[in-house]
Amino acid sequence: MSAEVIPLSRKDPAGVPSLDPILALTATPMNSVNAVILERMQSEIPLIPALAGHLISGGGKRMRPMLTLAGADVVGYQGTRHHKLAAAVEFIHTATLLHDDVVDGSELRRGKAAANIIFGNPATVLVGDFLFSRAFELMVEDGSLKVLKILSHASAVIAEGEVDQLIAQRQIETSEERYLGIIGAKTAALFAAASRIAAVVAERDEAEERALDDFGRNLGIAFQLVDDAIDYDSDAAAMGKSSGDDFREGKMTLPVILAYARGNAEERDFWRAAIQGHRASDEDLAHAIGLIRQHDAVAATRERARHFAQRAIDALAIFPESKARSAMADAARFAVSRVY
Amino acid sequence: MSAEVIPLSRKDPAGVPSLDPILALTATPMNSVNAVILERMQSEIPLIPALAGHLISGGGKRMRPMLTLAGADVVGYQGTRHHKLAAAVEFIHTATLLHDDVVDGSELRRGKAAANIIFGNPATVLVGDFLFSRAFELMVEDGSLKVLKILSHASAVIAEGEVDQLIAQRQIETSEERYLGIIGAKTAALFAAASRIAAVVAERDEAEERALDDFGRNLGIAFQLVDDAIDYDSDAAAMGKSSGDDFREGKMTLPVILAYARGNAEERDFWRAAIQGHRASDEDLAHAIGLIRQHDAVAATRERARHFAQRAIDALAIFPESKARSAMADAARFAVSRVY
Repeated sequence: MSAEVIPLSRKDPAGVPSLDPILALTATPMNSVNAVILERMQSEIPLIPALAGHLISGGGKRMRPMLTLAGADVVGYQGTRHHKLAAAVEFIHTATLLHDDVVDGSELRRGKAAANIIFGNPATVLVGDFLFSRAFELMVEDGSLKVLKILSHASAVIAEGEVDQLIAQRQIETSEERYLGIIGAKTAALFAAASRIAAVVAERDEAEERALDDFGRNLGIAFQLVDDAIDYDSDAAAMGKSSGDDFREGKMTLPVILAYARGNAEERDFWRAAIQGHRASDEDLAHAIGLIRQHDAVAATRERARHFAQRAIDALAIFPESKARSAMADAARFAVSRVY
Repeated sequence: MSAEVIPLSRKDPAGVPSLDPILALTATPMNSVNAVILERMQSEIPLIPALAGHLISGGGKRMRPMLTLAGADVVGYQGTRHHKLAAAVEFIHTATLLHDDVVDGSELRRGKAAANIIFGNPATVLVGDFLFSRAFELMVEDGSLKVLKILSHASAVIAEGEVDQLIAQRQIETSEERYLGIIGAKTAALFAAASRIAAVVAERDEAEERALDDFGRNLGIAFQLVDDAIDYDSDAAAMGKSSGDDFREGKMTLPVILAYARGNAEERDFWRAAIQGHRASDEDLAHAIGLIRQHDAVAATRERARHFAQRAIDALAIFPESKARSAMADAARFAVSRVY
């Protein structure tokens, strides 16, 4: 194992962290993954590919399958087994998004009408179930019980995290620890599993499996933290990019947890009322964003995210330097620098 | 293979088909299955076992795991691997029930308030996902890729059947063939898989696997047909047992399909309006039940069910006579004779 530390501050040649290297690295195999996705979301029931395709073709970043592909590259895997598995990962992710949209009553997803708005909740729930089943069929075809174990466990953990988030909703007393537990389950578990299975198909040792798992898990946490920060970012708000969805839904995310912890009694009263849904107007959101800025809660959330991104990058130190390793590190840097 | 035909009309000693023999046959291993179910529905998130337990402990008949247990007996399997797998089957079934209740907006399930009414749709969807994931974890622990293939495929087929049923809802032109396709997928696929996996763990040949699959599939179709008949049964209605749910939801089931096919122009106008939701009062339901009785549509549905039950029973002819075989045949006879 190399003891080299790869500093977070290292930038790509242009000086700005970018997804371009990982996109370039994975472009060719991603075509194969997309072909599997397209083929395996088909059904004799035309509504199924119509609904699934609405989300799957709808501008998703394919972040999780990208981790499987990049992970395979970093461990030097030469085969193609991971294409099907990366598609399975994307199906699991898509199934959870469809169910999330029903759970949250979302109206928008990736900038267009959410599937539940167009196709209704019933079909959206059922097509989620279909994709989830298809994911397992793909894994079974691959035939690795180890991969099946990793992804079935991740799926159970995701569902637990989603339930826990539901319970924490509108609960102002949610702690940072609990919040980290929730995002570790609902988001990071699949990032970790998607990365880890690359080492499994390549038959690398436990240490490399764990390194990829650590990379994915920390990246997932960083990614979710930044997502949650952006929802309250006053700069993003000024640009019309902050949706305020989390605020209106009374979701407990780190910017709120920190602003509440750092606030005075009057501010805490505001937060309590707001999270319980009694202060949900545009003015209330503007006030909330003001308080968050005043207490540097977005900046602190981004700082926390950088911590996890750095842990993700350092987890890669076990692998020899390569284009893949640099691209993965760049992706982690990009994840925490993005502003939308 | 024995050429013996086991007639449907054969009754148990008391002359009335009964579930008692299969219940007695499976009572001891069912305790082990229930222990697995109870243990594996646990989670650090207390809402999960609370919600899952509401349905799982709520008077379910454990029909599908019973098929796995009886099937293991009929093929002479001596091990205990099927206990975990039977629990996995029940988890898949429970997950689909939870999602069904959300999809249908059900208020009652097994005579008590449906989980979605008590716990809300969001938690109900997510706990369904959790149980589904747990089912796969149980299968992975068992380690048979063949079982995983059978049950992941069945799960995808169930979801397809549910979506197809959703599309057929309020469509008066739904044919008997399409209806049989829908119930073959949404109900019979899991009956077939639950039975088949018993032969897989016992490592019996393809013919025995298929025989159990055929038994389960035909029994599942028979079972669903009778369920659908009971919803319009005027005797059951007189006893306050007919819920009329299918009628009010505009679900196309065989009693309606047959009454519509056999009806005159005026009756067809009524059915069209009723299935589209324009005639949904108690009087309309009474009129519908009257038309169904007039055209013997419940009796014909039950006759169709007997046909499939007989096919289920005859599929067992490949196995030597045994207590298990008799009990399974009795269960099939019971399924089509029940009036509630």
